[in-house]
Amino acid sequence: MTLVEHSPLTRKLSAFVALSEVELAVLERLHERRRSFVAGRDMVHQGQSSQAAYILSAGWVCSYKLQADGTRQIVDFQVPGDFLGLRSVLLRTSDHSFEPIVDIEAAEVMTSDLLDAFAQTPRLATAILWAASRDEAMVVEHLVGIGRRDADARMAHFLLELASRLALVGMGSKDGYDCPLTQYHLADALGLSAVHVNRVLRQLRESGRVTFRDGHVTIHDHDRLVDLAEFDPAYLDQIGPLLK
Amino acid sequence: MTLVEHSPLTRKLSAFVALSEVELAVLERLHERRRSFVAGRDMVHQGQSSQAAYILSAGWVCSYKLQADGTRQIVDFQVPGDFLGLRSVLLRTSDHSFEPIVDIEAAEVMTSDLLDAFAQTPRLATAILWAASRDEAMVVEHLVGIGRRDADARMAHFLLELASRLALVGMGSKDGYDCPLTQYHLADALGLSAVHVNRVLRQLRESGRVTFRDGHVTIHDHDRLVDLAEFDPAYLDQIGPLLK
Repeated sequence: MTLVEHSPLTRKLSAFVALSEVELAVLERLHERRRSFVAGRDMVHQGQSSQAAYILSAGWVCSYKLQADGTRQIVDFQVPGDFLGLRSVLLRTSDHSFEPIVDIEAAEVMTSDLLDAFAQTPRLATAILWAASRDEAMVVEHLVGIGRRDADARMAHFLLELASRLALVGMGSKDGYDCPLTQYHLADALGLSAVHVNRVLRQLRESGRVTFRDGHVTIHDHDRLVDLAEFDPAYLDQIGPLLK
Repeated sequence: MTLVEHSPLTRKLSAFVALSEVELAVLERLHERRRSFVAGRDMVHQGQSSQAAYILSAGWVCSYKLQADGTRQIVDFQVPGDFLGLRSVLLRTSDHSFEPIVDIEAAEVMTSDLLDAFAQTPRLATAILWAASRDEAMVVEHLVGIGRRDADARMAHFLLELASRLALVGMGSKDGYDCPLTQYHLADALGLSAVHVNRVLRQLRESGRVTFRDGHVTIHDHDRLVDLAEFDPAYLDQIGPLLK
């Protein structure tokens, strides 16, 4: 078994496609240009062009859009196995910025690398389109969350989504996971104030559903958390490979 | 020149990739299963599985998510040249519903058709990933709009985005376009009440920027509308083919 068979992206794509030896080798080549980035310094700036995409292998990243008034809206977070800037590399100009939340490891992928990989194995192209579709489905869920869910349900939904995403790449379970996000990240992502985030987390803890403390999320009562969030994980499509 | 060279999807993808004869032929085959759908009746229901994707060739569609309380959040609108349910066909379960706003024409595309097309021409796979990335970028803009923009800027941004999208497929210009949306559609999409939509549209008209009346959007002052919306069309990536 080669190193890449253990990579988080490989684990994630395996939920969609049963990868052949050839496909694993092509994926491996996409991981060749390994790079490190330090926490807190943007990797890609909004408006930047000709940037690469990255495959995140360790650490957490947030992607955000700056508003004209200087505030920022966090669009989503990336965890190991996620692409960073896949959308931007095709759209040529990045419509958002990426900031590592902790020190991270990522593989740099050029547009030409992607095209070569797609030419060699179209199933991999489909799998990456699946991953992009899943990313879009998450943004849609966030849109609905901000538009329609109250603060408790929004937070519960967010924490459950992370639990599912992390479990897929072997970094957590239904019972909990390590999480480096601060209350400011949660506030920017969920459209709440930091004070409000604090109050919501306290309510979720006191109701015995979930505790987020000292960099760890502990899910005490998964079913009641799901009920509160009206969380249906179908949009994450983690039930096993469609393409055998 | 064959029929498919004129199809809206072909026009749209040509903004990203200069299509060869072979690629045009593969695209043509994707258009083979033509179907019609009547206005107001869902084509795909939220939660439905094993559905096809569609390439919209004529008419407008809205995609929306139903909330537990029975209200709906419109996620986005599809215009000719857009895929319907591309994300859902890969994610297996549709995370949203599609409703034709007027009678429409669309070509049905099975997952296996997509895979065959990708195997024949990987550049087409990349182009479709580009289109999916652009769809995601639009959802991100809507997320930011609902999270951060005031009602005037949100409406202005929405009308400008439609102008760009429609111009790309030859159905409008910077001066205006036909638009079958009602104030209820606008309200559901923008997170406003119908009364608020009415007031915002009146303000935009009275300020001499844009008039939306009798199924037509007339842009009187494109620059001032762009200023109000802080509209930067880079995320739509319409400046000409990246892949020659």
